[in-house]
Amino acid sequence: MNYPNGMGGRGRNTQSNKKNNISFSNRGMSLEADINATNEYYLTRDLAVIHKKPTPVQIVKVNYPKRSAAVITEGYFKQASTTDYNGIYQKRHIDFEAKETNHKTRFPLANIHEHQINHMENVVRHGGICFLLIRFKPYQETYFVKADELISYWYDALKGGRKSVPYDTIKNIGYLTPFHYLKRVDYLRIIDRLYF
Amino acid sequence: MNYPNGMGGRGRNTQSNKKNNISFSNRGMSLEADINATNEYYLTRDLAVIHKKPTPVQIVKVNYPKRSAAVITEGYFKQASTTDYNGIYQKRHIDFEAKETNHKTRFPLANIHEHQINHMENVVRHGGICFLLIRFKPYQETYFVKADELISYWYDALKGGRKSVPYDTIKNIGYLTPFHYLKRVDYLRIIDRLYF
Repeated sequence: MNYPNGMGGRGRNTQSNKKNNISFSNRGMSLEADINATNEYYLTRDLAVIHKKPTPVQIVKVNYPKRSAAVITEGYFKQASTTDYNGIYQKRHIDFEAKETNHKTRFPLANIHEHQINHMENVVRHGGICFLLIRFKPYQETYFVKADELISYWYDALKGGRKSVPYDTIKNIGYLTPFHYLKRVDYLRIIDRLYF
Repeated sequence: MNYPNGMGGRGRNTQSNKKNNISFSNRGMSLEADINATNEYYLTRDLAVIHKKPTPVQIVKVNYPKRSAAVITEGYFKQASTTDYNGIYQKRHIDFEAKETNHKTRFPLANIHEHQINHMENVVRHGGICFLLIRFKPYQETYFVKADELISYWYDALKGGRKSVPYDTIKNIGYLTPFHYLKRVDYLRIIDRLYF
């Protein structure tokens, strides 16, 4: 049934009010935005110094207009050769990757590239604290998974095994990160428990 | 006096031969290229895991042509909020900035931004190994200078003191990094001496 314009308008307003009522939750924020906010909190409280690395871009053409800033007019996204986040906490080197999935029952391993696996192996071998933050968007749950745990599943997949890790397995090998409105992915709490 | 073409040609050849004779030195390579080559050597020998962070770019417009890679058509260089290089060596967090100067007698402190000073202070306070690699291009000498040494000069300049650090002072507070054709800025040798 089609409503006249007025009704449609009111319908939309009602929906938008409903949306506002749940805006205190963390729904809709991307994992990256949540981690950046958390890192900012850690930094301002002087708890840890952890930053996201810039997106790797191959710069091909740059214009230098008079009296204004240089403009990149041709560039391409490059595949990252390392993880996205690193830094220092309690004298320890911290290194992690963040991934989110829309799946409800599994985390597809194709999300992680070979370069990143190699990098995580290097960091673990040299004594860093290395992990992944994996968010299942349908549940808004973010799990802390130690790199070496996930790496073994990745190699299994490479040898012809399952191409994904079941949600239940992630729940099992991982640790649910607490949500706090200022520390939206409070992964230091997990590190404290596991390493200190 | 102008020579006929033939002579000019021979003259150029002589020069070019002379240039070839000294091509075993590290003249002409940028500090960044030298450090990247050194880090690559460390990585392949499994000595340390240290990477340059990508150049921070603010991406404004992206084109998604059919059947080919996304093209960034408008982007701007952003000022780095951290140092350029970091990673892990012997379980320790490593963090450094690289700067080169054409000056023969001094290193201008305007080369280092406040954000970077703050970041270096943070890293030092949290127990990382933090330093600068400063190259005097006229001498092709690269000095390892501990972050806290340089930071004190930077604050002096802020309070109205000298806006640069004399070359002789850098020689005094810093450590000349050894040059090796594969490890062109062998800074781990200095770290071994100072921290282990």
